[in-house]
Amino acid sequence: MPNVVIDGPKINDLEVKRQLIKEITDALEKAYKIPRNAYIIVIRENSPENVGVGGTLLTDRINQ
Amino acid sequence: MPNVVIDGPKINDLEVKRQLIKEITDALEKAYKIPRNAYIIVIRENSPENVGVGGTLLTDRINQ
Amino acid sequence: MPNVVIDGPKINDLEVKRQLIKEITDALEKAYKIPRNAYIIVIRENSPENVGVGGTLLTDRINQ
Amino acid sequence: MPNVVIDGPKINDLEVKRQLIKEITDALEKAYKIPRNAYIIVIRENSPENVGVGGTLLTDRINQ
Amino acid sequence: MPNVVIDGPKINDLEVKRQLIKEITDALEKAYKIPRNAYIIVIRENSPENVGVGGTLLTDRINQ
Amino acid sequence: MPNVVIDGPKINDLEVKRQLIKEITDALEKAYKIPRNAYIIVIRENSPENVGVGGTLLTDRINQ
Repeated sequence: MPNVVIDGPKINDLEVKRQLIKEITDALEKAYKIPRNAYIIVIRENSPENVGVGGTLLTDRINQ
Repeated sequence: MPNVVIDGPKINDLEVKRQLIKEITDALEKAYKIPRNAYIIVIRENSPENVGVGGTLLTDRINQ
Repeated sequence: MPNVVIDGPKINDLEVKRQLIKEITDALEKAYKIPRNAYIIVIRENSPENVGVGGTLLTDRINQ
Repeated sequence: MPNVVIDGPKINDLEVKRQLIKEITDALEKAYKIPRNAYIIVIRENSPENVGVGGTLLTDRINQ
Repeated sequence: MPNVVIDGPKINDLEVKRQLIKEITDALEKAYKIPRNAYIIVIRENSPENVGVGGTLLTDRINQ
Repeated sequence: MPNVVIDGPKINDLEVKRQLIKEITDALEKAYKIPRNAYIIVIRENSPENVGVGGTLLTDRINQ
């Protein structure tokens, strides 16, 4: 701990994930002053069929 | 925000997801009085192999 | 299961929570066709100091 | 409720999941003294591309 | 990782929490075969006003 | 969406939270290329009585 869970759309580029994990860990380290090894981040990739924003499925927003 | 995460079994019909998102957003809007666009809902679909109820895997309950 | 977690600001009126739980359970029941007793909903109430929207703490947005 | 969510790597053996659910439910039952049927456990299986530990993707740690 | 989040009612006895953490970690260790230090468990204690089961607030069920 | 939940110990300094939210949002923006307003971050502050690491409550580790 600290643990972070990110819920977002799919990220296709591994390098983007790598960078995201690195930068969020940097930010956590500054805030919590706990050694770097303790931070765990989980990225969840969600299909647009499974996300609703403002009462509408993301898949319907995209297809409009 | 407000954000909602739903953990349930798979929903095969897109129209069911559409309706679920709409109705939960309606309920949230009444409760929080925050503009509709702010509500985010994530549906997680779980395999019966990955859910335990009462100490038994759902997949074992179904197959009994 | 299905389980729902709602992350929002504080709700001061118990009747509002009561109604929210009822209406979300109604929506879940229609979608999943699982008996009503199975649905569990957790409401999390978050302080504006602990929520960031668009890179800004909610407490700073409110005080602007 | 009580509900438990486990975030870990993939578990390939169904028997291991079965045992894990059973043992965690045993532990919950001792702690909460709530009837066994109430406990719901969800296992989330995460790809090493989607987990960061200490600022590094798990997939990069494994491949080192 | 693996990480576990438990959502339940309040636990008043520290010894019960201590035992719960120990036993769940034992179960995780057997399942994942990852060194013991890696397991992180968070206990969330929820007020009966903030939990709905079967469409009814827990606080209303208890007071019936 | 994307949404982020951070589980950590208490942060006493509001400025630290402010900075943490800002920097994580910066990292998310680079990764997802979604407009800044969409990112929601929730910070959960956990008591050392409610966190277990390696099978031991944090409160017991601190007091050793």
